[in-house]
Amino acid sequence: MPVFTDQVIYNEASMQAEVVSVGSELLLGQIVDTNSAVIARHLAAIGLDLYYKTTVGDNLARLAAVLRLALERSQVVITTGGIGPTADDITREAVAVATERELQFSESLMAQIDAFFRARGFKLSPSNRRQAFTPRGAIAVENPLGTAPAFIVEVAERCVITLPGVPREMEHLLVARVLPYLRERYGLKGEIRLRVLKVVGLGESRIGELLADLMEKGLNPTVGTLAHLGQVDVRIAAKGTDAEAARRLIEPVEAVVRARLGDLIFGADADTLEGVISARVQRLGIRVAVAEFGSAGVVAERLSAGLGQGFAGGVILGDPAGATRLGGDLEGGASPEAKARLLAEAVRGWQGVQVGAATVFEGDPGSEPPVTVVGLAVAFHESLESREYRFGGDLPSMKIRTATLALDLLRRTLERVA
Amino acid sequence: MPVFTDQVIYNEASMQAEVVSVGSELLLGQIVDTNSAVIARHLAAIGLDLYYKTTVGDNLARLAAVLRLALERSQVVITTGGIGPTADDITREAVAVATERELQFSESLMAQIDAFFRARGFKLSPSNRRQAFTPRGAIAVENPLGTAPAFIVEVAERCVITLPGVPREMEHLLVARVLPYLRERYGLKGEIRLRVLKVVGLGESRIGELLADLMEKGLNPTVGTLAHLGQVDVRIAAKGTDAEAARRLIEPVEAVVRARLGDLIFGADADTLEGVISARVQRLGIRVAVAEFGSAGVVAERLSAGLGQGFAGGVILGDPAGATRLGGDLEGGASPEAKARLLAEAVRGWQGVQVGAATVFEGDPGSEPPVTVVGLAVAFHESLESREYRFGGDLPSMKIRTATLALDLLRRTLERVA
Repeated sequence: MPVFTDQVIYNEASMQAEVVSVGSELLLGQIVDTNSAVIARHLAAIGLDLYYKTTVGDNLARLAAVLRLALERSQVVITTGGIGPTADDITREAVAVATERELQFSESLMAQIDAFFRARGFKLSPSNRRQAFTPRGAIAVENPLGTAPAFIVEVAERCVITLPGVPREMEHLLVARVLPYLRERYGLKGEIRLRVLKVVGLGESRIGELLADLMEKGLNPTVGTLAHLGQVDVRIAAKGTDAEAARRLIEPVEAVVRARLGDLIFGADADTLEGVISARVQRLGIRVAVAEFGSAGVVAERLSAGLGQGFAGGVILGDPAGATRLGGDLEGGASPEAKARLLAEAVRGWQGVQVGAATVFEGDPGSEPPVTVVGLAVAFHESLESREYRFGGDLPSMKIRTATLALDLLRRTLERVA
Repeated sequence: MPVFTDQVIYNEASMQAEVVSVGSELLLGQIVDTNSAVIARHLAAIGLDLYYKTTVGDNLARLAAVLRLALERSQVVITTGGIGPTADDITREAVAVATERELQFSESLMAQIDAFFRARGFKLSPSNRRQAFTPRGAIAVENPLGTAPAFIVEVAERCVITLPGVPREMEHLLVARVLPYLRERYGLKGEIRLRVLKVVGLGESRIGELLADLMEKGLNPTVGTLAHLGQVDVRIAAKGTDAEAARRLIEPVEAVVRARLGDLIFGADADTLEGVISARVQRLGIRVAVAEFGSAGVVAERLSAGLGQGFAGGVILGDPAGATRLGGDLEGGASPEAKARLLAEAVRGWQGVQVGAATVFEGDPGSEPPVTVVGLAVAFHESLESREYRFGGDLPSMKIRTATLALDLLRRTLERVA
């Protein structure tokens, strides 16, 4: 099973944490639990390992039993969900049972909840009073983003940290309150820093071969890859005594990766292809038009969302005849790539802008299993860049892959020509 | 916390099951676990409750401990993942440890794995030999879709069922082998049937009011709602002694729901708006074109994927001037709805087809918090249907909502006019 190599670092930590997600809707898969992954990443950054994640329905006895077990095997137990105002929100009660304390009404929590409602002009419902109860001796964690107060119960050297299930509130409280608390209480000093280099144009296995020496187990930093459709992230994770030390460990490794992968790397960390293209389009004061035959608007959608005014418009062809309405003629192209070249120039002219991009999908009738041939082209100034790919697999994946490769061809063309 | 009302039925069951998902990549949130939800639904259909879901990394000791605990509290334990050929696939070993058996090499499993590779022209790697080991006395479950053989270990009245992590393989084995095994072994007779009615054009809370009497707790069938962006599913779940009995319980309730919601219901179960539209478009022998100003291709993408040849093409406008290239002029429209009406007729003419659909987004500068006004229109024969909505929230959600509402307007127009 493919395991991301960051875990090598996670496993070095000595302290152990676990997450308990509460809610029948999570158990039944009606809502996907994104909180655990967010918690895992934040805990890793302070050197805490996440070892288990348990999901339990809204049942007091079962949740209390799970919490008791969690406290036996982990120093830090974090719960998410089940602290709303209704009767099936039973996390408060379950933590009280598992830590053998009574629930206690807190006037100051009640005042906070009351203030939250007043500020928004809402009427406090009697059931919100439930939320002002926490296990005796709990450390209240004020929640400025919602009505559900979070709290921490310390049990000897261990603790149960109870957070809301709403992802935005959960992450805010985790970062603003819980991480500082954990650092302080457990004297956690290690820092993990992550640098992500984003690559288009080379498969994950080929990148793995090129970086094999950096990806060996036990190194610090670790280097790992994570494949998306059409894009691969190279993740460099370093553990240092502080953030600056971790950063210094990353620098030389990043330099090696960049030397080997060159301009296949389009950006780092939060960079997106759209962002990189948008910056260049704005600087040049140009606009981009796109025509798609087969990819049905996925390129246009990404450009529209990412380029703002730099996106002039797009045309989605339902059949080859659509090209004639743009003043083009796909009959002149012998291959999908040749057709994409005609289409890129046609849509640029039709829209009256500086840059035209195009995609053309065509089945290859001779191949078994079925293959789709995808032609991509970008017309800019005198330059007409193009590529051709052969894809198997399902159409939705093919479209996502095509959008990424088309945007990357656009990025390269703008970088080369301008 | 909002809980889907199906669970009322789930809780009536007497037998208890739990899922153990294996894989560090699941724990770290690099892959989202969809298997548990699929298992929950299939188990519910034979009257088995899912009470816990635990995720564990690729660690033998921790996984074995979790499995031991699971066997203490649940009759049926289902594992997914960790049975591949590599060294970090440790589920086989962990099940053996937890059930106190040795691993045993199976010649017949090895022959199956070998045959799978031969049939595909792949070379068997020595590590695949690992996959022919199962705990002594295990019932082998042949996996025709992959190389990872599944198996069942019976422990007195309980059992551990070990399935692959690949969702397609997992669900196939679950349905084809595991459910019949569970029915047979535990004499499970209850059947749950689910009927989903799909609604566009009314919010979840309003539907909840209209169906309040049907949604009370403790009824059989239960009625619940599940909101998507722009669409609400009304789910009717009945438990009967067999499938036919469950179906008979659903019928009168479905009739009541249909009487109250009328043509807001566009279909049931696996129906999609695209499918309903496609059937009508094919029967009428017409084609649809679309122009989008603001929604950036989301309507075109759904029509393209759903209508095949019935989708003639689409135009995505980057600015209002784009309309002139279609022979239209948005200046003539006083509102987004009026502009959408002009655009729907323009794109229909430009494409030379029978049906034109259009979307127009416009900010309302006077509103705080910001609101986007969305105009939708469909031109077909002499008919020109249109709607206007005011949306808050983020652009991606707005686009999804718009696509659903535009498709629904198209469906209604085709039904009314044709």
